[in-house]
Amino acid sequence: MAQILADRRDIDFVLYEQLDVNKLAEQDAFKGLNKKMFDMVISEARNLSIKEILPTNAEGDTLGVTFDNGVVTVPESFKRPFQLLRDGDWTSMSKSPDLGGQGMPYMVNIAVLEYLWGGNYCLVNYGTMGLGTGMMIEIFGTQQQKDMFLEKLYTAQWGGTMLLTEADAGSDVGALTTTAKKNDDSTYTITGNKIFITNGEHNLTENIVHPVLARVEGAPAGTKGISIFIVPKIWVNEDGSLAESNDVVCTGTEEKMGIHASATCSMALGGQGKCRGLLLGEENQGMKIMFHMMNDARFNVGFQGFTYASSAYLYACNYAKERIQGKDLTAGKDSASVAIINHPDVRRMLTWMKAHVDGMRSFIYYAASLFDWLKVEPNAEAAQNRQDLIDFFIPLVKAYSTQRSFDICTQAMQVYGGYGYIKEYPIEQLLRDCKITSIYEGTDGIQAMDLLGRKLQMRGGALFKAFIKEIRNGITATQDDPVLTVLAGRVSKAVDRLEEVAAHLSKTSASPQVKTAFAFAFPFLEVTGDVIMAWMLFWRASVAVQALAKGAKAKDQAFYTGMVKTAEFFIHNVLPVALGKMDTIADGNSAAIDIPDDCFGG
Amino acid sequence: MAQILADRRDIDFVLYEQLDVNKLAEQDAFKGLNKKMFDMVISEARNLSIKEILPTNAEGDTLGVTFDNGVVTVPESFKRPFQLLRDGDWTSMSKSPDLGGQGMPYMVNIAVLEYLWGGNYCLVNYGTMGLGTGMMIEIFGTQQQKDMFLEKLYTAQWGGTMLLTEADAGSDVGALTTTAKKNDDSTYTITGNKIFITNGEHNLTENIVHPVLARVEGAPAGTKGISIFIVPKIWVNEDGSLAESNDVVCTGTEEKMGIHASATCSMALGGQGKCRGLLLGEENQGMKIMFHMMNDARFNVGFQGFTYASSAYLYACNYAKERIQGKDLTAGKDSASVAIINHPDVRRMLTWMKAHVDGMRSFIYYAASLFDWLKVEPNAEAAQNRQDLIDFFIPLVKAYSTQRSFDICTQAMQVYGGYGYIKEYPIEQLLRDCKITSIYEGTDGIQAMDLLGRKLQMRGGALFKAFIKEIRNGITATQDDPVLTVLAGRVSKAVDRLEEVAAHLSKTSASPQVKTAFAFAFPFLEVTGDVIMAWMLFWRASVAVQALAKGAKAKDQAFYTGMVKTAEFFIHNVLPVALGKMDTIADGNSAAIDIPDDCFGG
Repeated sequence: MAQILADRRDIDFVLYEQLDVNKLAEQDAFKGLNKKMFDMVISEARNLSIKEILPTNAEGDTLGVTFDNGVVTVPESFKRPFQLLRDGDWTSMSKSPDLGGQGMPYMVNIAVLEYLWGGNYCLVNYGTMGLGTGMMIEIFGTQQQKDMFLEKLYTAQWGGTMLLTEADAGSDVGALTTTAKKNDDSTYTITGNKIFITNGEHNLTENIVHPVLARVEGAPAGTKGISIFIVPKIWVNEDGSLAESNDVVCTGTEEKMGIHASATCSMALGGQGKCRGLLLGEENQGMKIMFHMMNDARFNVGFQGFTYASSAYLYACNYAKERIQGKDLTAGKDSASVAIINHPDVRRMLTWMKAHVDGMRSFIYYAASLFDWLKVEPNAEAAQNRQDLIDFFIPLVKAYSTQRSFDICTQAMQVYGGYGYIKEYPIEQLLRDCKITSIYEGTDGIQAMDLLGRKLQMRGGALFKAFIKEIRNGITATQDDPVLTVLAGRVSKAVDRLEEVAAHLSKTSASPQVKTAFAFAFPFLEVTGDVIMAWMLFWRASVAVQALAKGAKAKDQAFYTGMVKTAEFFIHNVLPVALGKMDTIADGNSAAIDIPDDCFGG
Repeated sequence: MAQILADRRDIDFVLYEQLDVNKLAEQDAFKGLNKKMFDMVISEARNLSIKEILPTNAEGDTLGVTFDNGVVTVPESFKRPFQLLRDGDWTSMSKSPDLGGQGMPYMVNIAVLEYLWGGNYCLVNYGTMGLGTGMMIEIFGTQQQKDMFLEKLYTAQWGGTMLLTEADAGSDVGALTTTAKKNDDSTYTITGNKIFITNGEHNLTENIVHPVLARVEGAPAGTKGISIFIVPKIWVNEDGSLAESNDVVCTGTEEKMGIHASATCSMALGGQGKCRGLLLGEENQGMKIMFHMMNDARFNVGFQGFTYASSAYLYACNYAKERIQGKDLTAGKDSASVAIINHPDVRRMLTWMKAHVDGMRSFIYYAASLFDWLKVEPNAEAAQNRQDLIDFFIPLVKAYSTQRSFDICTQAMQVYGGYGYIKEYPIEQLLRDCKITSIYEGTDGIQAMDLLGRKLQMRGGALFKAFIKEIRNGITATQDDPVLTVLAGRVSKAVDRLEEVAAHLSKTSASPQVKTAFAFAFPFLEVTGDVIMAWMLFWRASVAVQALAKGAKAKDQAFYTGMVKTAEFFIHNVLPVALGKMDTIADGNSAAIDIPDDCFGG
């Protein structure tokens, strides 16, 4: 059967052959787990998604959510798979078993989510979004708060959200105006309006727990004066039982380009003056706490974007193999028509897609593995190194993945031609749904600023150095293979150039030309991502060359050979374009800064 | 008032300062026309679009067309503006007055369409699509056929279409199976099914004239055996009056990602065995005739794509100037929040969009001017030169413009952030609508094959030579200005490199490595387009430098300075990336061809 959603053979390759998740299973923290269990869990996730979740995806798009007088209703078909998600403990696999999780490596969790989110992100995220809310409480909450909320959130008995954005406070969180006033019983009364709240209201869970950013009366201006509160939709008694409704109401849902089945809510807090919240952590620590969640949220959105791309790519592969149209370029005019996968331009598109899907899967799983190894790392210095890599990678996972994933969906549509544009086929929904990922959880432009303005400078540039060291280790570990040697040489040069360009940008960003530097923040993010892709694809090719040398099974020959060819394609056809872009960064022309505002738009 | 749809100052610049349409008005063929009339017509088009057409665009998207038992109904709000389009003779401005047109230069027609299509393409195209149908009849029809159909089509009394695609004959037209059988009265009986027929059925005109590609019984296989027929929805008597309904029926409309108000119809011809058609031209000449129309259709689709981009860009400019969010990068933390146009990354996006919108407007108007000058060119050699340039540019206008226009809509959404993704704002519709343009009238991949496989080889490479000569003339005509001199040097180098790369590809495409060559057809189209953009922007900057030297009016200073900065931006920030892509073409790696099919998609 043709693969859909995600390529299982490739997932297995990344988990077992590239990243060796089995080695992780030998660690105490993952005691009792093994390959057989990982395999079973991933297979089950695939079955569940294909049989129960994916079939609801198109209907979710067509029906969307309905809003009526504060009540948000999801499509009826969502209820059964949502219950199955809960019954099977699918929503928090990598959480500790005593909190309702299964203690799985994050890498395996990601593999599971590739199928679950790939089937219907909007639906599954009503369950998985509680994780972000829960994690903040797990780290910063009191024991009382943990007892009240954690297990319910992790098991998707209750939903979670994040009430951050206001009409005039989007990218600029510090501008928010929602207020909090301390009551005698140490709860806070919250008043304000939030917009663009994912899953702010819906009928899938009996309660929803809202983390809310607000400003305590008298707090400093800007981000320094922001606190974070737990505001349940239905108030929770200290014993965990439900009390009366809290004064937090959905006032409407947005009509959007895609993710129609995801409720994007406007929320009014304290319209009746009766919205209560519990302080999480301490006053004015809101941004610090939220940023902790934000790293995960950004990682997730990057991965969400990838799942659309992974799916669009496989659909395009299957279509290209089945769609008969036109003659083979080297065959006669009277020859039989062939499947379009034979046409060079279609092959170019498929190989381009494969290079980015493969590369991004490896990159994201690799980033996930850093979280896993961080958990078991006894050495403080080594742990710091892993943390540095994670911090450096977050904006790249978020923005590079969502940019390229949208491009992949676009290419997939091009492979389908006219059929790609009509709703009868899955591509146009994937393209529309995917687009949100470059926007929410901090636009990709914000990620680029994070990379250049924070990550590149943090700890005296240690993050970037750790990254370059890691990539150099990866490339020099090459076998004595002529193809790999050529590829390694090209990637090495690109790494050298990236280092130069990063040094140049760092310098410029600390000079009076800071604005010009930041006009190159996004191109810098892009080329860094491209170099990472080259690294990942080279890594894959190295493993593949070894496997081929050992004598791969017949059915694996094409798989491994394809991996080498894919690396070759990317390093010969994409990396030189990235080098061209690096030239522009080094050039550092300031036209975009100098150009007069009045020339824009007449 | 903020500009929307299209930048009038810039249109005037292109028409009068860059391409000098006034000089055209001095020619006999355009006698009696002058700047005042052009200005008036464009202003009227702008008013009509903003007051009557644009207000129907969002509704058209929301309501779409409805299909019920063969009848297709457009939104009620379309009727009034459609009648105004007819009353004002807006649908065929550049056609001869004795055929219902106004004899305007094509350049001016394009300026008008930038506003009319920009307001609501789906609506206006119910009127303008008759032109393609009419032009084929004007050139290849009998006098009788011209008398029966032409004026009705040009004045949008009747609609026009193009019945080409079948379920198994899309890009491969030669595979079509619709048949035609000659009757005793010299009409033909047509039988077959067509899909994806734009405006195949609707309730805006009393009749619809379908040009239909079909195969006469016994005709050769493939494209050689295709004929073209005029098949009116309602049969037309020889005196032009309407007779009985013909047996050509809409069996359904497609649900699509965008252009919801454009009826994309499945058509059954001869379901009752009673579909009659008139042969256009001679039997088996269908492809030749259709290709004549196809050049115009491809030009139009390229321009359609551009209108979305032009509009999205202006919306993004206005939004960036109005949206207050975040502090200026060089101001203190306690400074007031600023409009987002001040942020470097937003400026990068706006300048990138402006460069492409400006460059494409100049390019498309320039291509239109070639049609105008061809009309009045007395010298055969010079005429051939213009025709060569037109033929070379068609796939570029179609594919480069639609690719970059989609990217511009995507960037515009990024400028809007979350607001760009919701239906309350215009961007997401523009993005969805724009996507079709890279697919229909021959996918952009097909255009790339046309460029490499036909246009680059035609007449012994004369087209490409003519193009390179034209661009070199343009660049060397530089003033003694230091900024221009640097830019000219960079563009010249890119032109040299493009020539090398084209020679390399030409050679490879005639070798056993033909498939590898065609895997670079699309990158070649892209870099050719990029070089054209550099040329156009340099041309604009040259004009602007002169205008500034002469002492431009205060309100024009920013306009002209912006033009120089935009050229600088493109030539420093985009052209080097194109050079990187040219390196990959020269490298000519064959991985995309060699990669095994079985590695795609597991």
